[in-house]
Amino acid sequence: MHRRDRETEVLTEAVVRYALDRLQLDPPPLDTSVSEAELRRRAGATITAGGIGGEAALQVFADVLAPACISTDHPRFFSFVPAAATEASVLFDLVVGASALYAGSWLEGSGAVFAENEALRWLADLAGFPASAGGVFVSGGSAGNLSALVAARHAWRTTDHRHDTRRGAVLASAAAHSSVRAAARVMDADVLAVEADDVGRLTGDALRRAIDGLGADADRVFAVVATAGTTNAGLVDDLAAGADAAAELGAWFHVDGAYGLAALAAPSARPRFAGIERADSFVVDPHKWLFAPFDCAALVYREPAVARAAHTQHAEYLEVLTEGQA
Amino acid sequence: MHRRDRETEVLTEAVVRYALDRLQLDPPPLDTSVSEAELRRRAGATITAGGIGGEAALQVFADVLAPACISTDHPRFFSFVPAAATEASVLFDLVVGASALYAGSWLEGSGAVFAENEALRWLADLAGFPASAGGVFVSGGSAGNLSALVAARHAWRTTDHRHDTRRGAVLASAAAHSSVRAAARVMDADVLAVEADDVGRLTGDALRRAIDGLGADADRVFAVVATAGTTNAGLVDDLAAGADAAAELGAWFHVDGAYGLAALAAPSARPRFAGIERADSFVVDPHKWLFAPFDCAALVYREPAVARAAHTQHAEYLEVLTEGQA
Repeated sequence: MHRRDRETEVLTEAVVRYALDRLQLDPPPLDTSVSEAELRRRAGATITAGGIGGEAALQVFADVLAPACISTDHPRFFSFVPAAATEASVLFDLVVGASALYAGSWLEGSGAVFAENEALRWLADLAGFPASAGGVFVSGGSAGNLSALVAARHAWRTTDHRHDTRRGAVLASAAAHSSVRAAARVMDADVLAVEADDVGRLTGDALRRAIDGLGADADRVFAVVATAGTTNAGLVDDLAAGADAAAELGAWFHVDGAYGLAALAAPSARPRFAGIERADSFVVDPHKWLFAPFDCAALVYREPAVARAAHTQHAEYLEVLTEGQA
Repeated sequence: MHRRDRETEVLTEAVVRYALDRLQLDPPPLDTSVSEAELRRRAGATITAGGIGGEAALQVFADVLAPACISTDHPRFFSFVPAAATEASVLFDLVVGASALYAGSWLEGSGAVFAENEALRWLADLAGFPASAGGVFVSGGSAGNLSALVAARHAWRTTDHRHDTRRGAVLASAAAHSSVRAAARVMDADVLAVEADDVGRLTGDALRRAIDGLGADADRVFAVVATAGTTNAGLVDDLAAGADAAAELGAWFHVDGAYGLAALAAPSARPRFAGIERADSFVVDPHKWLFAPFDCAALVYREPAVARAAHTQHAEYLEVLTEGQA
């Protein structure tokens, strides 16, 4: 679409040299945040009528912007778990970035979707999910929890509560990730908080007390959310008790394992997750303990058909993608 | 974190050669979708106990997966507008991919956030937004519309409707993008569809009739959504009429310009968007006419403080990011 010219060739060379040099820094500089005023002074005007050109843009990035971004691959960067990439995963990101592919549908990107499904199948097997399970990668744990809860409410609304216009509710630990409360706000649903135990873990006793105290609210609960790896302390809720509570309420059971559920792959830790095999959905973040180079969340559903019904967008120009597609 | 070794060096060389070769294909092969059974047969087992190693993974990608993904940079690929990347933007994606940066907060990635803010400021200026405007890049037009409507409902709920537990409602053209209806489903809100005119455009007359017919529902409308570039035909709604309708209802005015609003940069097309300067928020997709290499949406708010209040997640480990941050 855009013809190659001498300028592009020079830029290609400069970019590849920069990327290679950056990959080979061992360690990279930690770097630090810089004030907006200082960045403005150093960067100057970058969006101009004529454009500053690729080489100047690369220079601004190298000299001004990159040193103002903490290197998440620095060996002493332990905060916020934004990423824990291996070199192989960063390298492969270059391959994907150069390949102009789109993984939003089988029709457009069957090879990429196949690879995603293989990874999701591996996760589903680790959790003991049935062969019919399936899922999707979304932009992060927050989007994953939101998507799962939207599917859960859809299941609730389309079965016993077809004409129920009351606000739905989610039963979750007070120690659940902030994104569960954010998802409920987005959805106009309530979070009914279950008190965690002394260390911050959701237990069967606490769920028992919470259910006994629900009264008429029991009928509004469309999901029970348990956490497999709380952000502050890495605690794993009693997932079997969460599954029991959901079954008793006729609700969906979602496990937020964004932070901790990659430990399913460790035989020593596997027993902590007993009950995960009874979940209706779970999320785990590949950019944490699965070493992906960029934030995302793997979202796995026991019955993907329910999620598909909840999330499919309908439009003339999309029919070719949704007709008969798995 | 992961020490470099000879194997990594070999892989680096192979990856860079592959990426460079791919970038220099002119044109690249169009490629096509392949059945799951055939992909499984060709790819074999890729997730194994010992791992297949980086070079074998690259080989599977090159030989099996990449040819099963349509090249979105092929000059005759016109469908679905998943991307319309320039070579410069694809090249820069390599730089960013190699740099292990995280742009989720100023503290962690001030240089990247600064660059994002410059781009958002440029878009805000094109729309005639005030100096106080600001925004964020999200994962796509659907996420952008959802985020804006959540902010709109938050504004509605926290002003005149603090104790209003009824379902909120959005006034939008019947020709609005499917993601507006999807956002409303996620939010447990209703879409009150306004009939478009013969060609599919939302007009002042149609909005007048719709408002007159609202009755008691008028009080539930928290947003009016207009489209700047419908997906099927590229039509731009009467944005000034949309702004008038929102003002009359005391509602938020959101413009979904995912597909068309990049044309703000074209003086010849600018008059079609008269009224955009009165919007409370708009989205435009950089991977369409702004030539970014990967799906995303630029979401710009007139008053970012409202959006911040609607979307900020609260947690102990996040306080360091939200204290006093712009």
